[in-house]
This record gives sequence, C-alpha cells and structure tokens, in this order.
Amino acid sequence: MTPTLTISDPSDPRIAAYRDIRERDLVGRENRFIAEGKVVIDVLLSARRFEAESVLLLPSRLSGMEAVLAKLPGHVPVYCAEPAVMDAIAGFHLHRGILAIGRKRPAEKVGDVLAGLPEEALVVVAAGIANHDNMGAIFRNAAAFGACAVLLDPISCDPLYRKAIRVSVGAVLKVPFATAPDAGMLVEALDDAGFAQAALSPGGKLALSAVPRGQRRALWLGAEGTGLPEDLLSRIPSVRIPQAPQWDSLNVAAASAVALYHFSGAGEAV
Amino acid sequence: MTPTLTISDPSDPRIAAYRDIRERDLVGRENRFIAEGKVVIDVLLSARRFEAESVLLLPSRLSGMEAVLAKLPGHVPVYCAEPAVMDAIAGFHLHRGILAIGRKRPAEKVGDVLAGLPEEALVVVAAGIANHDNMGAIFRNAAAFGACAVLLDPISCDPLYRKAIRVSVGAVLKVPFATAPDAGMLVEALDDAGFAQAALSPGGKLALSAVPRGQRRALWLGAEGTGLPEDLLSRIPSVRIPQAPQWDSLNVAAASAVALYHFSGAGEAV
Repeated sequence: MTPTLTISDPSDPRIAAYRDIRERDLVGRENRFIAEGKVVIDVLLSARRFEAESVLLLPSRLSGMEAVLAKLPGHVPVYCAEPAVMDAIAGFHLHRGILAIGRKRPAEKVGDVLAGLPEEALVVVAAGIANHDNMGAIFRNAAAFGACAVLLDPISCDPLYRKAIRVSVGAVLKVPFATAPDAGMLVEALDDAGFAQAALSPGGKLALSAVPRGQRRALWLGAEGTGLPEDLLSRIPSVRIPQAPQWDSLNVAAASAVALYHFSGAGEAV
Repeated sequence: MTPTLTISDPSDPRIAAYRDIRERDLVGRENRFIAEGKVVIDVLLSARRFEAESVLLLPSRLSGMEAVLAKLPGHVPVYCAEPAVMDAIAGFHLHRGILAIGRKRPAEKVGDVLAGLPEEALVVVAAGIANHDNMGAIFRNAAAFGACAVLLDPISCDPLYRKAIRVSVGAVLKVPFATAPDAGMLVEALDDAGFAQAALSPGGKLALSAVPRGQRRALWLGAEGTGLPEDLLSRIPSVRIPQAPQWDSLNVAAASAVALYHFSGAGEAV
C-alpha cells in the first residue's frame, strides 16, 4: 500500500497548488501543470522531461492506482481527500478524483529538439493553434501516428494547459515539443535540418495523396477559420485534403489525423 | 432590414424556448433544438428536414446576419435582445449572440433513409457514441467527406443536442440520420441494401488501406474505451488504423476522419 497523507481542510497549505485549478489555467503556473486521471498520470510518471511534485486523490481511487503509484519516487507525497474536500480544493466537481501536479524541467529549444531527432522523422508544426482542445487532439494524433516532435509558433497556446493535457490523454507529456520565437525561424530551422515541409490548407495546391512521404517531413497546421498566414503559405508547399464542395472544411484536429495517417505511411496499400 | 421584435424582459413568454438552454439540453425538447451561430443557422434555413421556429440575436449581430435572415420565411419571428437580457434568458454568457429554435419534422426511419440513397453511397453507423462532442465531430467529418447518411443505435446520443449541433458546424442538420431500435437490425438492413460493412476497431483484423471502397460502404464507429461490442464485431469485418504501438488509440472522431478519408476516395493517388 502506498503511504498517504490525509487532507481534511481545503485550505491546507500542502495542497495549495491544487486550489481553484480551473481558474489557475488562466494564469502563469511557474512551470507547473495539472495532470488528471489515471492514464495521464501514468504517462507523467514515465516522462523524461517532466516530474511529479505530488498526487491528490480520493480514497476510493487508491486501490485502482496502486500500480501507477508504485512508479512514484519515494519523496513525492500522495494526498488523500474525501470527495467534498477535494471538490472544495479544486473549485468544481472532479469526476475522476485523481490529480497530480507536474513540473517541467527547463524548456527545450527548437534546435535541441531537432538535433535529437532520428534520420527518419515526422514533425508537426502548430501555427496559431489557440484552442486547447485542438492542441490536445493534435498531440494525441501525433503520438498515435508516431510523430517525433511538435514545434509551436509563439501564438499557439501552451500545450501544458490542463485541458490540452487531458484531451491529449497525456500525449503532451510524451511527444517532445518546443516553441520558437517566430514562425519564420521555424521554416528555416526545418529547412536546415533537411525537412520537406507541407502546409495543410483547405485551398492547398496539392492533394494530400500526391505528396510523397520522404525521410524527414514537417506538417504545418494553422488556426481554424483564418488558417495559415499568407507569408507562410508562400514559403511552404500547400496541401489540401479533398473534401465535399460547398461545405465547411474539416476541424484542424481531424485534418491533422488524416494528414498524419498519410505521412506516417499507415495508409500505404498493404 | 429584417423587422425585429425587441425583448427587454428575460421572462417574456415569446422567448420561453430559449430559457436556460444549458439545462434544457438534459431534458426532452418536444422535437425542438437550439442552433447557435451564423453558420449553423444558415444551414438550418437551408435544411429540408428541419424548420426554424424563431431567431434571437443581439442588435449588434443584425447587420452581419442580413443575408442569412433573408432566407427566413416571413412568419418566423426575429427577436432582438441586449447582451444582459440575452444572457439572463440563456442562463449563461452567450459569446456568439445568435440563436435559433429549430424544429424537426417527423423523424425518418432507417428504411426510408436507406431507400433514398444513391447507387454509390458511404454511410456512417454510430454505435454507442454517447459523447456530444464526438457525435458532432463525426457528423462534421461525414459531411466533409460526402457521406450520405448517419445511422445510430439506440444507445448513441441525440445528434440534435445543442453541443453536438455546434461542434458539427451544422452538419447534423445537413446529413440525414435515423435511429434504429437495435444495432442488430442495422446490420441486417445495411446487408439487405447491399452495403459492404466495416467496423472500425483498434484491434481490427484488416488494415484500413487493405479494405476496398466499393459502391456502397457502411462504416461502423463504436464508443471510445469500450469500442464496438463483441457480437457486432463477430458479424462485421473489423478494420484497424495502424498506429504507434504502446499508445492509446485515436479518439473516435479522429479515427472517423481517417476512415472516411479512405472510403471517400479522397486518399486515392492522383
């Protein structure tokens, strides 16, 4: 049995990091983030670039979490709180009843991430992805199709927002990522590293199926609605997913799944 | 200019259908539903199987909605309310400020939907899709890849829930759908109508790319987590999307995008 510390007072300073987490998503978090649920916390405890600071869960969840908690370093505290206390801490009803505070190690730089990639590599570039659900879904798809990294422009949201982590089912903690100071720099860095680049766009010049996979491929994804800016589209070959005419285009997360399916080679005839 | 009726009292009986709409998602709605936003209401006003009962919007949105509102039949009232009144009516802050009440015509039966399909047809079958976001996304993907209909088992949620309509960007109002009394009946009806059926499953026997398109194709999608039940998987060939090992599978909405891309023919080499 994992030794636990019982929390009976929602204002207990030991669990201050869990307080009002919905609200705290909107503010800086000193390199910390909230991981929710068994699967995500399991990924956190296996992650190289992150570490767990503490775990907070309902007593009823303890038995189901034994195997996951066995991975915790001995110095990391596990707090237990009854449902009413837990909800009072979090500021809303926590359906899953399992939380952890994670901490980033120093953020990696784009150059370091690129330098660590294998000879054959698929990379996702998120440009202007401000929606946390989309960001989480893009990471989940990147992990499912074996992408090696996600690179972000400065307008994209932080993948470590609580909801992005949750939607990604922990992929944000698994797939390496780095944010560049500007998108133009990313185009150059990828070019220098030998990546063929493709920009997904509803009006793209080439059909996705006509674009070869190649050894090193970077897939650019833009914001829904506005899409990728013109200056980027003028520098990178644009690619479209053929779709029904007179209809709104795919959501960016769905489009990423289709394009990653293609570029991963999973769609090759067997 | 569209003539409008000003609402200054949130309890005005004329806009009773808009009251506390977040809550009302959970209860029966007498064949009515809530459509939100310009794009969705535009689809509603072009839909064959639905009609608009009224529109409620902020005065500031009127000018941008003129072209859409021009499609409204003359007897359908357009109500205007200032932001504070609108939020008080809806029960929460309405970011978009444009709502409509839609009404179903009598629900179609599975047999009628199948009878109306063209010789070449792609159909989506949702079995146990209880999440409104996933349902909406599946419809959006179905519309994007030209699927002719969505068929539902009785466990799947109602596509006309407010959030499903919103996530679908109106596709729920565009792609015909019908709910069957049980999933087994759907297998038989599709078989009788000459549909080759495929069940998407992380452990599916065939890789997606190995499954031919064919003239009439039905794609079964199951609930995340549990997936399609064994008795269905024993009756329908199962299909997998090859993914990275030791990782959680794709979300059902993302998986539907990939499979529909394949079955639509959009992924064929050009």
